[in-house]
Amino acid sequence: MSILVINSGSSSLKIKIFSDIDTPAIVHGNLEKIGEEHSALHCQFAQNKIDKQITCADHREGLEQFFTVLKDNNALVDITAIGHRVVHGGEDFSQPVKIDDNVIATIEKNIPLAPLHNPANLKGIEATMYMFPDVPQVAVFDTAFHQSVPEHAYRYAVPESFYKEQKIRSYGFHGSSHQYVSKEAARILQKPTEQTNLITLHLGNGASVAAIKNGKSIDTSMGMTPLEGLIMGTRCGDIDPGVLLFLLQKYSHDELDKILNKKSGLLGLCGSNDMRDIEAQNTEQSRLTIKMVVHRIQKYIGSFYAQLPELDAVVFTAGIGENSKLIRKLCCENLAHLGIELCDEKNNNVTCGEIQSSQSKVKILVIPTNEEMEIARQTYTLINV
Amino acid sequence: MSILVINSGSSSLKIKIFSDIDTPAIVHGNLEKIGEEHSALHCQFAQNKIDKQITCADHREGLEQFFTVLKDNNALVDITAIGHRVVHGGEDFSQPVKIDDNVIATIEKNIPLAPLHNPANLKGIEATMYMFPDVPQVAVFDTAFHQSVPEHAYRYAVPESFYKEQKIRSYGFHGSSHQYVSKEAARILQKPTEQTNLITLHLGNGASVAAIKNGKSIDTSMGMTPLEGLIMGTRCGDIDPGVLLFLLQKYSHDELDKILNKKSGLLGLCGSNDMRDIEAQNTEQSRLTIKMVVHRIQKYIGSFYAQLPELDAVVFTAGIGENSKLIRKLCCENLAHLGIELCDEKNNNVTCGEIQSSQSKVKILVIPTNEEMEIARQTYTLINV
Repeated sequence: MSILVINSGSSSLKIKIFSDIDTPAIVHGNLEKIGEEHSALHCQFAQNKIDKQITCADHREGLEQFFTVLKDNNALVDITAIGHRVVHGGEDFSQPVKIDDNVIATIEKNIPLAPLHNPANLKGIEATMYMFPDVPQVAVFDTAFHQSVPEHAYRYAVPESFYKEQKIRSYGFHGSSHQYVSKEAARILQKPTEQTNLITLHLGNGASVAAIKNGKSIDTSMGMTPLEGLIMGTRCGDIDPGVLLFLLQKYSHDELDKILNKKSGLLGLCGSNDMRDIEAQNTEQSRLTIKMVVHRIQKYIGSFYAQLPELDAVVFTAGIGENSKLIRKLCCENLAHLGIELCDEKNNNVTCGEIQSSQSKVKILVIPTNEEMEIARQTYTLINV
Repeated sequence: MSILVINSGSSSLKIKIFSDIDTPAIVHGNLEKIGEEHSALHCQFAQNKIDKQITCADHREGLEQFFTVLKDNNALVDITAIGHRVVHGGEDFSQPVKIDDNVIATIEKNIPLAPLHNPANLKGIEATMYMFPDVPQVAVFDTAFHQSVPEHAYRYAVPESFYKEQKIRSYGFHGSSHQYVSKEAARILQKPTEQTNLITLHLGNGASVAAIKNGKSIDTSMGMTPLEGLIMGTRCGDIDPGVLLFLLQKYSHDELDKILNKKSGLLGLCGSNDMRDIEAQNTEQSRLTIKMVVHRIQKYIGSFYAQLPELDAVVFTAGIGENSKLIRKLCCENLAHLGIELCDEKNNNVTCGEIQSSQSKVKILVIPTNEEMEIARQTYTLINV
C-alpha cells in the first residue's frame, strides 16, 4: 500500500508518499509558483532527487506534470488512498471524511471563513479526483482537532447573531500538528492519549498553542483566522481591536489586511521573519523581539496552565520549537512555580524527547511534528474502518 | 482643607469633595446630559440632597451652576486643590502633574489616543481653571500607573514605525483604581506596597486586570484603547483581528466601531449589560455569557500568575468584583493548583477583606475601589511636596 498526501496552497503544491503510516515518507515533492511563467518542481526520492523548471497554468496542469515525474520514478505504484489537507472545516467537520460531492459542497460553503486557503485546497482535490477517480480520497481538516473546544472558549463577545448567522467564532488551526504531537507525547510519557494533559506549542512561521485535556483540545490561541494568538513570522497575533479601528482612519481595509498579515510579527518588529536571523542579529530590536515573542508564549502557557490542573507536559514543536534552543530556554524561564523547569544540557542536546530537569513536576518535550504523517494516518484509518 | 475631584466626561460631570484624604467624600455630585435641552444635576451633601433640572449649553455653564449649588450649601469653602481625572496621558505622564499650559498642550497632543475622553477632560479643566484661577490644579492620568509595564509587554507586533511614529502600543487604563486597591491590599496584608505582588481584577461595566509586582504594574489587559481584554458591559474585549477584517467586508468603520464598543460584550451576548440582570435571567444564553466572562478572567489570572512567582493576593473590585458573589466564586473555581481557594462562607459575607479558605496559599480579597479618593490623595501629595 501507499498513501499519497496532498497539501495544495494558493500557488503551490506539496506532496508526500508514505509506504507505511509509521515510517517517514518515501517521497517528498514540492511545486512552487503555479501559474507564473516558470514553476519550480522539486522531488526527493529514496535514491535520487529531481529539480526542474516547468510551465503550468493551473493546479491540474501542475499535478499532471508532478504525477508524470512520480510515475517515471515508479513512485505512483499501489496508491491505496489520497489524503488532502483542508484548512477550514468550519463547524461541519470534527473528523476526517471521505470526499464526495457533499463534502466538496461543504468545503465550498466554508470558503468565506478561509477565502485564500479553501479554494486552493479544492483545486488540488478536484484535480486529483479527476486523475485518480477510483482511489478513495479523504479530507483532513486543520480545524477539526479543535472542534472539541467548549462553547464558552470558542465564542467571541460580539452580538449573538454574528455567531448564529455568520459563524463568527474561534476555530483554531494547526490541528493535525497539535494532534500528531499530542499522540507522540502520550507515547513518550507512556500514558493513554485520552488521559494525557498537555500544552502543545507549535512554533513555526505560523504559530499556535493548544491546551489538551485528556487528549482533546480545550482551548487554542488561533481564532476564526490564523491571525490571532502568538507573534508569528509576518502576522501580528493578539492586538487591541481598537488599534485596527485607529489604523482604519489612515489605511484601507486591504492595506490593513496586508499590514497585519504580511508585514507584522517578527518581520515588522525587526526586519526578518526568520528566527535564526533574529537570534544572530543581537541588536536592541532583535532582543526586544525575542522578549516579546517569549512573553506572549509564557502568557499562553499560564493561561492554559490555569485550565489544566493535572498538566503532564509542555511540548515544543515546528521550526522554532524543534530548533531554537534559546527560545525553548527563555519560554521555560521563571516558571518553576508552575512546575516547569528546563535542563539546559538536555535542551542543548535532545532533538526528540524530554528536556526537563530532574525536579521539574511537568515534563518538557521536544517533538518534531509531522502533519503529513498525521494526515496519512487519519486517511488510512478512515478507509479501513 | 478640601480637595475637589472632577471627572469630566463627554456629556457628564462628576465631582467629589474630600475634607481629608482618608475619609469618604463629603459631597458627591453628578451632572448628566450637558448640552441637551434638560440637564440633570444631583448633589448629595452630608445633611441634604439636591436633584434639579437645569439648562446648560456646555461644560463651563454646567460647572458654573454646579458650583452655585455647592456654594449655596457651603461646600466650596477652603478648596486647597483640585484634582482632575484625565484618561490618556500617552507616554508623557507616569505621575500626576500640576496643570499648566504645557500640560494642557500635552493632553491635547494625546487626543488621537483618546478622541472621546481627552477633549471632555480638557473642557472640565479649562472651565475649572477659569473659575478657580488661584487654586492649584492637578491632572491624574488613568494610564499613568501602567507606565511601569516593560516594553516587551506593552508593544504590539506591528511594524516598528507604528510605535515610533504613531505611538501604537498598550497603555492600560483604570490606573487609579488598580493603584488604589493595590495600596489597600498591602495595608490589609500588612506588607509594604513595594513588596506586594497582586492580580487586581477591576470588574465593572468597563473591566481590566493588572499584574502588580512589588507594587508596580507589570502587565494589564486593556491596551491602546479600553476595548482590549476582558468581556465588558458593551465592549467585546479580546478578539481575533481577523474578525474585524472579515466584518469590514460588510460594515463601515463607524458601524464596526459602534458594534464592538457599544453593542458587544454582555449586551451583545444576552441583551443586558448589567450582571445582576444576567445572573437573574438563568437562561441558556445567560449561563453561557457568565461562563465566557469567567473563562476570560481565569485566562488572565493564569497568564499573570505565570509572571508572578510570589503572588500574594488576587483582588476583586468595582461593581461586579465588589458585589457579585457568583462571579467571584466561579473565577476562583478549579484554581487550587495556583494556590487560589475561596471560602464560600466568607465570600458570601465579607464586603471588604479576605475571602480565601484557610488552606489557600494566595489570599483572595474584596476591596471596594475609590478612584476619586486616589485622585484626591495624589493631588494632595503633589501639592504638598
